Amino acid sequence: MDNRYRIGIDLGGTNIKAGIVDRDHKIIASASRKTRGERHCGEVLDDMAGTVKDALQKAGISLEQCESIGIGSPGTIDHERGIVIYSNNIRWEQVRLAEEIKQRLSLPVKVANDANCAALGEALAGSAKGCKDVVLLTLGTGVGGGVIIDGKLFQGGIGGAELGHTTLIAGGELCTCGRRGCVEAYCSATALIREADRAAEQSPQSLLRKMREEEQEMNGRIPFDAMKAGDKQGTEVVEQYIQWLGEAVTNYVNIFRPQMVLLSGGICGQGALLTEPLKEYVKTHAFAGERLAIPDIAIAKLGNDAGIIGAANLQIK
Amino acid sequence: MDNRYRIGIDLGGTNIKAGIVDRDHKIIASASRKTRGERHCGEVLDDMAGTVKDALQKAGISLEQCESIGIGSPGTIDHERGIVIYSNNIRWEQVRLAEEIKQRLSLPVKVANDANCAALGEALAGSAKGCKDVVLLTLGTGVGGGVIIDGKLFQGGIGGAELGHTTLIAGGELCTCGRRGCVEAYCSATALIREADRAAEQSPQSLLRKMREEEQEMNGRIPFDAMKAGDKQGTEVVEQYIQWLGEAVTNYVNIFRPQMVLLSGGICGQGALLTEPLKEYVKTHAFAGERLAIPDIAIAKLGNDAGIIGAANLQIK
Repeated sequence: MDNRYRIGIDLGGTNIKAGIVDRDHKIIASASRKTRGERHCGEVLDDMAGTVKDALQKAGISLEQCESIGIGSPGTIDHERGIVIYSNNIRWEQVRLAEEIKQRLSLPVKVANDANCAALGEALAGSAKGCKDVVLLTLGTGVGGGVIIDGKLFQGGIGGAELGHTTLIAGGELCTCGRRGCVEAYCSATALIREADRAAEQSPQSLLRKMREEEQEMNGRIPFDAMKAGDKQGTEVVEQYIQWLGEAVTNYVNIFRPQMVLLSGGICGQGALLTEPLKEYVKTHAFAGERLAIPDIAIAKLGNDAGIIGAANLQIK
Repeated sequence: MDNRYRIGIDLGGTNIKAGIVDRDHKIIASASRKTRGERHCGEVLDDMAGTVKDALQKAGISLEQCESIGIGSPGTIDHERGIVIYSNNIRWEQVRLAEEIKQRLSLPVKVANDANCAALGEALAGSAKGCKDVVLLTLGTGVGGGVIIDGKLFQGGIGGAELGHTTLIAGGELCTCGRRGCVEAYCSATALIREADRAAEQSPQSLLRKMREEEQEMNGRIPFDAMKAGDKQGTEVVEQYIQWLGEAVTNYVNIFRPQMVLLSGGICGQGALLTEPLKEYVKTHAFAGERLAIPDIAIAKLGNDAGIIGAANLQIK
């Protein structure tokens, strides 16, 4: 059989990345172009097709040797029809992405949310390889999520699986979605920075404040660094953040009961400092306690490759 | 083909109910015995088999004309192996329910959580008939849930789909599961009664208080009755309850994106008084607003039959 490869595209706010993926879930070649989402949408679509052709050339294979294309896109996706309903990130609304790419490359195309693709990639070839049931959380500007159940991508109805937009504290902090108190408003890197800023404001003598001044502005690493140096305010900010994240993870455990929960995003550079207290929190708070298996919590290891590998495997439902 | 019927058992804290279900999802005969869960578990199992035989006799058919048995059980279920891991309700722990009933009736047996079975029943033959994606919430002593995705029962990993044990207000009211702030602690009938009791305590002149005195103790109907009579405290209790329920339903909508959300339990006697403001709340708060379809919210109509019909259909995954 000639059609041995699948193509995965990771459409990001900054870059379009395309990879040629083999049957062992390895990316044999990849290419990248700038997204520049402010352009007319047709130009971005042309560059997506172009990025695929670049990757094919690098791999030294032809389009005919590939059987399908999968695309991970930010935003709300109609995965049944391959439409980007809305993406704040690349300013798209109602873009018929599957149809447009199929016209340009003449292969079957599937589209899914980017965090969903990352979860599938990690379950197939990354930190959760071999796990049937996996929840992945991306802790970045927002909180994205992807769920694998029985080896398959869970997407719910159209536009579903928005794990970050479930309540942690109803009526609490304003969320980007317009609601108050969502997980995203407490567990994103943005939320960690907000809380660290508040603590720095309240405690002018704290190391947290000093570190912020040195680096000009707050970032997600500072509260961890302050904690490591014994700063009370930094410690409080980190502990509160981990407790919120623990509550969110416990929710997803009670709903999905995965074997593994993966975390990705810049904050995850903290490694065990994040995962160890989280494991303890979930063990204590998950429904039915020790009667049910408590999932392992780990850091996703594939980075951007997860999205490409996951996207390439969207065809296999 | 002789095997035209399936058997559904609804194992409740008070009663064991068994029904013979035909291919059109109609219960052609049913029977019931007392559960008396305080007995030795073997006696309850014998009575479950006995209830099935009673129902068969009423239907005038033999066991050989049935192809399978499904059981809806309270508690945490290992649906893959048919084990009741733990049920507070009937005081069972690690009961190999599928195996035990198979020994007694020589048919293939599947077991699922009772609220899950109810959701499947309503999706097949009840208020959500024809809907592919459905979320059902049972608002009773606790909050149970069942989810149908693409026509199939969603159960997550073992012990999953515990919708009632996700946070509404982290750190808030103590929940029966040991955690603080779960949906169950705000949206159960128990929670409504707790809030109505608190309001009655604080306002000795309120109609809410007067009605409680007349009925000796608070129940879930009183705050609605007080509201209808124009009582300020009753209105506040109901409005707060609906807002909490709205937050919970919005969470499930963002995760599962069902076409329909069904509510069941005693409170649902309030009908449109409950569903109309809920629809409005979800429309305003669900992720991506009007860009995505907003599910209908309705009252489940099959009552106890939903659990029997759903259980009978567990075989078809």
